[in-house]
Amino acid sequence: MEPLKIGVAGLGTVAGGVVALLQRNAETLARKAGRPLALVRVASRSPKRGIDLGGAAFTTDLDALHGPDIDVVVELIGGEQRAAQLVRRALQGGQAVVTANKAILARYGDELLSLARAQGVGLGFEAAVAGGVPIIGALRQGLAANRVLTVAGIVNGTSNYILTAMAEQGAAFAEALAQAQAQGFAEADPAYDVEGIDAAHKLTILAALAFDMSFQFDKVYTEGISRITEEDLDYAKELGYRIKHLAIARRTEQGVEARVHPTLVPQRSLLAGVGGVMNAVWVEGDAVGATLHYGAGAGAMPTASAVVSDLIAIARGGALDYPVGRRPHKVLSIEQATCAYYVRIPSLDAPGVFAEVAATLGRHGISIEGAIQRHRAVRSGAGSGSWVPIVILTASVREQTMTSALAQVQRMPQVVGGIASIRVEHLMG
Amino acid sequence: MEPLKIGVAGLGTVAGGVVALLQRNAETLARKAGRPLALVRVASRSPKRGIDLGGAAFTTDLDALHGPDIDVVVELIGGEQRAAQLVRRALQGGQAVVTANKAILARYGDELLSLARAQGVGLGFEAAVAGGVPIIGALRQGLAANRVLTVAGIVNGTSNYILTAMAEQGAAFAEALAQAQAQGFAEADPAYDVEGIDAAHKLTILAALAFDMSFQFDKVYTEGISRITEEDLDYAKELGYRIKHLAIARRTEQGVEARVHPTLVPQRSLLAGVGGVMNAVWVEGDAVGATLHYGAGAGAMPTASAVVSDLIAIARGGALDYPVGRRPHKVLSIEQATCAYYVRIPSLDAPGVFAEVAATLGRHGISIEGAIQRHRAVRSGAGSGSWVPIVILTASVREQTMTSALAQVQRMPQVVGGIASIRVEHLMG
Repeated sequence: MEPLKIGVAGLGTVAGGVVALLQRNAETLARKAGRPLALVRVASRSPKRGIDLGGAAFTTDLDALHGPDIDVVVELIGGEQRAAQLVRRALQGGQAVVTANKAILARYGDELLSLARAQGVGLGFEAAVAGGVPIIGALRQGLAANRVLTVAGIVNGTSNYILTAMAEQGAAFAEALAQAQAQGFAEADPAYDVEGIDAAHKLTILAALAFDMSFQFDKVYTEGISRITEEDLDYAKELGYRIKHLAIARRTEQGVEARVHPTLVPQRSLLAGVGGVMNAVWVEGDAVGATLHYGAGAGAMPTASAVVSDLIAIARGGALDYPVGRRPHKVLSIEQATCAYYVRIPSLDAPGVFAEVAATLGRHGISIEGAIQRHRAVRSGAGSGSWVPIVILTASVREQTMTSALAQVQRMPQVVGGIASIRVEHLMG
Repeated sequence: MEPLKIGVAGLGTVAGGVVALLQRNAETLARKAGRPLALVRVASRSPKRGIDLGGAAFTTDLDALHGPDIDVVVELIGGEQRAAQLVRRALQGGQAVVTANKAILARYGDELLSLARAQGVGLGFEAAVAGGVPIIGALRQGLAANRVLTVAGIVNGTSNYILTAMAEQGAAFAEALAQAQAQGFAEADPAYDVEGIDAAHKLTILAALAFDMSFQFDKVYTEGISRITEEDLDYAKELGYRIKHLAIARRTEQGVEARVHPTLVPQRSLLAGVGGVMNAVWVEGDAVGATLHYGAGAGAMPTASAVVSDLIAIARGGALDYPVGRRPHKVLSIEQATCAYYVRIPSLDAPGVFAEVAATLGRHGISIEGAIQRHRAVRSGAGSGSWVPIVILTASVREQTMTSALAQVQRMPQVVGGIASIRVEHLMG
């Protein structure tokens, strides 16, 4: 059979992994694909470095990938505008595309999928979410019989590494971040990862597939991990929870919740056991119930694993897209979301404070499911007098109700510092 | 577009789930499949019961499913001979097949896949392993770029329920089994589940897909959970492990290991956290590293989720099979397997016994990684004198070396009872 002729755009870490994997497993891949996967050309604006490209040509001209001698363009240059342009041009010219670029999918997913469909060519993006974990395939195919109810993932390895280091070593955020940077798990500018933007890109894609909806990146509520303290990690542990940075999309009667934020999850849940840079995505469907999909979320070879699996699918002529259009589900604002909460209230160590907090929450219809209160010494910067943090776990409540209840508690004269609140999800089963 | 015309054979629990799911999610399914999934006929030798078949016809004649008005036959009658015959006849007549029947795949997988390939029709069996967990799709597609190194699964819910109950409630095997039977998680004759036959069927399928090899059910080493004691669960816990019933296939230089047996896994591993009737499959690939795939392994709706996902793939014209033939990898005998071991040796509470055991193991080149030894009172039935169990964790060793070392230890006069040994796997990452 005719080989599948592949052009790779980019020559960074992942591209290096793809090139290596295509060579290393050539025989296995050809058997599974039904024909050889032939790397014809690699294009990168930066120089070739020392990478062995096998028999493939190298060029610094990205446009050289568009032509009849390339069946499928693998977009691994990253960034947004140039990458999107490359993908568009390939699809318009009838070339299939495989990309690991979550940003362009999150922003232009509707357009790019429509274009691929109109042209009748494959658009693979297994590598765009959770690296080597085959979660895109699971949503597209293995779980396709379900009405998905919830998708919740640890999809940013950097944030998970930092939270794991904080929980296990009692490190502060800045310290754990520095450690992640030293290990090469975090960029010099870590905002993209630790402020949740990367996770929001991935959630946009997960939600689009899970709910067969349009890509609505600008509607995703996004909160990072930089305000998580060792104190909160300790209290969470005492209450039987861990803190993870989750990307959550949930179907409700009113619309779809789509939110990225630090989250308390039960210590006994599988998500709590996902440590270091690993990723995991929890999917609950109406028929299948709860499922979990775990693996390496980044790195040259895990990401290459996903890219090459898409190449195999394209070589076999498999459909890489749903045959029909996406639906414009309404995405709820964060105020409309429903969640349980962990709340830490720095308050004076005086009689009746807890009772007054509880009464305020009660007036808002918020039930208390658990609490920690103990007397302890004055802490630095907390003003005069002895004070204690009141720590409360609530039942599920509408976010805007919680916000107004906490605003009222914050105004209590006995409350001596800013209230910390972290959402809670019980993803068990 | 033309609907996909479906005939279902069988009307048990899973068939009921499939029929219900096709009705409940009809609109979603049609959108994902690109055309309606139309249930045309249900055939079962037992009467119809009260199941709502929608517009589908009912017949007690299984042969009525073979004909031009049925595109795909869903085999859910179970058993072996009649089911295999039904699948063969469907494929021979150019009908696609979806089956949840692990036994016929384990025994006739090579023949049935060849037949499907020769006829150019799909043969879907996502439901045959780990119920709703899309592990077949992951091996076929999402992880296809990898040379798989290890597959290890908790694939029998009954055994996992019993081991979980024993560990959490301190129940004895018989007690936990009775509990599983009372809850409907175990059959009146539980041998198929607790002796590991069901898991061995599933492992045969996993190994065939993971290593692109022939189905070699008769080569799978199979050991059940009935000899696991509360004592072993307790010692395992003390050493930082849980005992799970695993189905393991591993690629080695010498051949493929394929074995089903109780296994100590580290308490911190994700597999240790898989409780109750849930299933999980661990897959390690050369590119992706470690992955885990978790969900409900049985039940009407989870299994129906898998069956219907195969129907969607068939409706979309997706390839459900590798396009090329399988390879006859050599399966190693259990004596040739390599594993770490937990060993419990009932011995007299006398000086020097531990040292002599250690020396015997050492002469066989077996390293000790951990041990528990404490003095305690005589136990009933253990003969005269005071005795203690010596509990040892070893490093990895060839099984036949372990067997001969333990035979020698067993002959020591200070050893007062049968030695228990359980294999250990460190599936972390």
